[in-house]
Amino acid sequence: MKTKYLAALLATTIAVPAHADVLVDNVSGITMDEEGKVKRFEALVIDDDGRIAKLIERGEDRPRTDYREDGEGRVMLPGMIDAHAHVMGVGFGALTLDLSDTNSLDEALEKIRTFAAENEARHWILGRGWNQEKWGLGRFPTAAELDSAIADRPVYLERVDGHAGWANTLAMKAAGITAASESPSGGKIELLAGKKTPSGVFIDLAMDLVSKAVPAPRAVERDLALAEAQKVFHRYGITSVADMGTTIEDWQSFRRAGDAGSLNLRIMSYAFGPEQMVLIGGSGPSLWLYDDKLRLNGVKLYLDGALGSRGAWLKRPYADDPGNYGLPLQTPAQLRNNLVRAAQGGFQPAVHAIGTAANAELLSAIDEIAESFDGDRRWRVEHAQIVDPADLPKLADNGIIASMQPLHQTSDRLMAEARLGMDRLDGAYAWNTILDLGGTLAFGSDAPVEPADAFAGYAVAITRMDANGEPFGGWLPSERVNREQALAGFTSKAAYAGFAEGRFGRLLPGERADFILVDNDPLLATPEEIRATKVFETWVNGRKVYEAD
Amino acid sequence: MKTKYLAALLATTIAVPAHADVLVDNVSGITMDEEGKVKRFEALVIDDDGRIAKLIERGEDRPRTDYREDGEGRVMLPGMIDAHAHVMGVGFGALTLDLSDTNSLDEALEKIRTFAAENEARHWILGRGWNQEKWGLGRFPTAAELDSAIADRPVYLERVDGHAGWANTLAMKAAGITAASESPSGGKIELLAGKKTPSGVFIDLAMDLVSKAVPAPRAVERDLALAEAQKVFHRYGITSVADMGTTIEDWQSFRRAGDAGSLNLRIMSYAFGPEQMVLIGGSGPSLWLYDDKLRLNGVKLYLDGALGSRGAWLKRPYADDPGNYGLPLQTPAQLRNNLVRAAQGGFQPAVHAIGTAANAELLSAIDEIAESFDGDRRWRVEHAQIVDPADLPKLADNGIIASMQPLHQTSDRLMAEARLGMDRLDGAYAWNTILDLGGTLAFGSDAPVEPADAFAGYAVAITRMDANGEPFGGWLPSERVNREQALAGFTSKAAYAGFAEGRFGRLLPGERADFILVDNDPLLATPEEIRATKVFETWVNGRKVYEAD
Repeated sequence: MKTKYLAALLATTIAVPAHADVLVDNVSGITMDEEGKVKRFEALVIDDDGRIAKLIERGEDRPRTDYREDGEGRVMLPGMIDAHAHVMGVGFGALTLDLSDTNSLDEALEKIRTFAAENEARHWILGRGWNQEKWGLGRFPTAAELDSAIADRPVYLERVDGHAGWANTLAMKAAGITAASESPSGGKIELLAGKKTPSGVFIDLAMDLVSKAVPAPRAVERDLALAEAQKVFHRYGITSVADMGTTIEDWQSFRRAGDAGSLNLRIMSYAFGPEQMVLIGGSGPSLWLYDDKLRLNGVKLYLDGALGSRGAWLKRPYADDPGNYGLPLQTPAQLRNNLVRAAQGGFQPAVHAIGTAANAELLSAIDEIAESFDGDRRWRVEHAQIVDPADLPKLADNGIIASMQPLHQTSDRLMAEARLGMDRLDGAYAWNTILDLGGTLAFGSDAPVEPADAFAGYAVAITRMDANGEPFGGWLPSERVNREQALAGFTSKAAYAGFAEGRFGRLLPGERADFILVDNDPLLATPEEIRATKVFETWVNGRKVYEAD
Repeated sequence: MKTKYLAALLATTIAVPAHADVLVDNVSGITMDEEGKVKRFEALVIDDDGRIAKLIERGEDRPRTDYREDGEGRVMLPGMIDAHAHVMGVGFGALTLDLSDTNSLDEALEKIRTFAAENEARHWILGRGWNQEKWGLGRFPTAAELDSAIADRPVYLERVDGHAGWANTLAMKAAGITAASESPSGGKIELLAGKKTPSGVFIDLAMDLVSKAVPAPRAVERDLALAEAQKVFHRYGITSVADMGTTIEDWQSFRRAGDAGSLNLRIMSYAFGPEQMVLIGGSGPSLWLYDDKLRLNGVKLYLDGALGSRGAWLKRPYADDPGNYGLPLQTPAQLRNNLVRAAQGGFQPAVHAIGTAANAELLSAIDEIAESFDGDRRWRVEHAQIVDPADLPKLADNGIIASMQPLHQTSDRLMAEARLGMDRLDGAYAWNTILDLGGTLAFGSDAPVEPADAFAGYAVAITRMDANGEPFGGWLPSERVNREQALAGFTSKAAYAGFAEGRFGRLLPGERADFILVDNDPLLATPEEIRATKVFETWVNGRKVYEAD
């Protein structure tokens, strides 16, 4: 046994190099520091448990380590954190038809036709990403138009914002939709102009009428989608995501990956509603699992819809649809009950609020409830897109976090002008005002609604201009944030928004070694260069998980 | 960094004693060995990862280890394995009213009255364990009788076999049960003699009519129940359980305990039906999690009910209820679809079959399906209580495992005689015949239906006599098994039945150090002594998890 004992100890010793400490040298390193200031360094040492052991600044001696990696002078940044995305949506998106790059109805129909031909085996053709505004259609598309592409299989396609669905005739038939079908509360069945016939487009809660007829994905497909999603985020240099609306099926896929050692994306999970919250977390948030790669933080709640489908809940009617105020998806009582139920369990609420009325209602609800709960709650307002200027100061109260998505501003700006009118945009995507008022901004993409492109988001955050440089000088340019604020929004603040500060989000000793090597310094490069940033390598927990060809 | 590196290594070294190797010396050790024979030893060494490093036989030198435990000459056995129990049922049972020790209706009513008085806070009074046969009532009890104990709160009590429920008037009211309510297929609403009025007792699937009105336990209660269940099993010297009918809520409690490091019972899980199987496991069984403490092995299916409620499905009518054949709970097609669906995913099916017709149907279904699936499937027949002698040989085919519960034989024998008649008992609880035919026996308790008392089960297995020594000489005594077979049934064979051989179930190098210290040698003691076995200590994964006062 003595020998066995020594052998065991020896094994332990020999095992160390397997989880060896690593020096990543010769980089132009950038991180936010403890004071929220930018810190620069030339190298870092990774611990044998995937944490950062030491930062090395210019001129400092390099320590002796088991391994040395040469950063070749590239820019090292903390792994980007996406504070609002839909992990499985990104994964399934990578597995299904994507229409987000189509610029006309005809182009979309052609792409649908091709996809169907390439996927004979699929009983349903599923996809997403269409946008009648981008097509310049000036109306929703119809089932008949979809039938002209595919009539022999059911087709169901979600709008780019996920708040409307477009079905062909077979899909509506499978769902039992007829002229007699009635719109559910919180949703709307679009009708053909001047007729009682459903047009093929279903708004918000009416989408369920069709989607419930879509066969659910099998577990093997879910696991495949998660693997695809990880690749997508890693390619963009994203190492952690707040998953906004985790179902028990999603959670089980996350855990299977964690159990198998194939979870290489940190997921801060927000359960899809109170029932899933309790089913997944039990009486409170989960522990940080798998070396801080998975935690159920709280619950995602929806208070309204989106602007595109006119589901966003406004204080005054839509400028382009008089009399339509949009739709609240919860009564005041339901909202308060859900917030209290979450807070009582220590779950963090993250509430979707896009329109002025939704934001006003949510902010007063939080104000009423917050005082009954001590401790650090970090109530999350997701999107906070169109806020009445009178309500903006409340976004700085009660430790609220404004979780916003820069790319939405460029994608939505013309629509926002149409929906609201030029005179009602003062509180639109008001990033800088929120910071000036003392609020906390966490940035994300809302992928797959937008691409999970953190550097494109960063470029928008500091310019309010889109990929084409439009509008010149920026849209409501006073709402730009500075480069340090943009970097914090996609790293340290996004971690803080998920209670992950000190675990990851900064490149400081004791935090997880999640970093990327890129070609541009986002604090110095032009917005165009930043938008075109090339991600060479992505590292999670001290291990390389992505390398560009 | 050099110093840091050395510090890290030092830390690893110093850490070793924390997971030190331990010599447990001075025991009278017994285990089944690789050949299935009994092996005796005097000491064993536990590895730093909770596995057995070495067995030490009489006269052998003791190795040097970090720690030494003195077994004080006590008998060491492998931790008992319960091949069929309901973990959360045992836990909730420990938290709710238990009527299993009542010998008359009046005694039961008094106990219910007292429990309700002691639990003012509970809106519903829930319990289990009543048995009108044991009470000598000769009929089911009524709601009116229950009202006489408690009329101001709903009361719902499950029968000892879990196949019937007894409700008071308020509980039936809460469930909306009226004279107009109809029995569902697969279940029966008992009526008052000669009337249309529900009597208060609900059989098999009719139980759902009431139980769906019972408020679901909260997650905190589930976690508490799991903690209670672990205590109960440890007290009986049980270190591993096959959980027969795991729901996603159960699974989440198991995982929360595993994540928190408070799971000290090995759970081989069989999901409650195909939907839960896929939700929990995805496309196949889970990995062995938490040092082999949790795995989803397969799926629990129900083909019939139980004898007590005359739900067991028989080839010929009940002797004491002419015309009643009992109830199949699945059609032949459903059964085959469920078996195939499980086998395709590599899930192990465990099918409840009690009556002659259910066992015949299940055995032919397995025979038809087995040839299409290669590999080691270990189809499990749960209970196999009353098998037509003509069908017994099939229990030795296709690698089938007969998962049986010795205590059921003593509890059910008089009822079995009444339900079937003396001339139809040849294939009843036919343990020895199954072994003689080359079958594999795994023993369990079906707790909370019976107490999780493995030593009482062991005593019954070798005597076919109950706690009072009845009937003298044993009931159908030719079906006794020998002591080695009984020990294997509760240890090595129970592990094999869950694909755990080589991981736990025997005290051999490389297997987990799950063992108990007791006062009697079950290979030598009298049945009375075995039944009274005192468990001094229970160890799981090399750690003491229970110690008697």
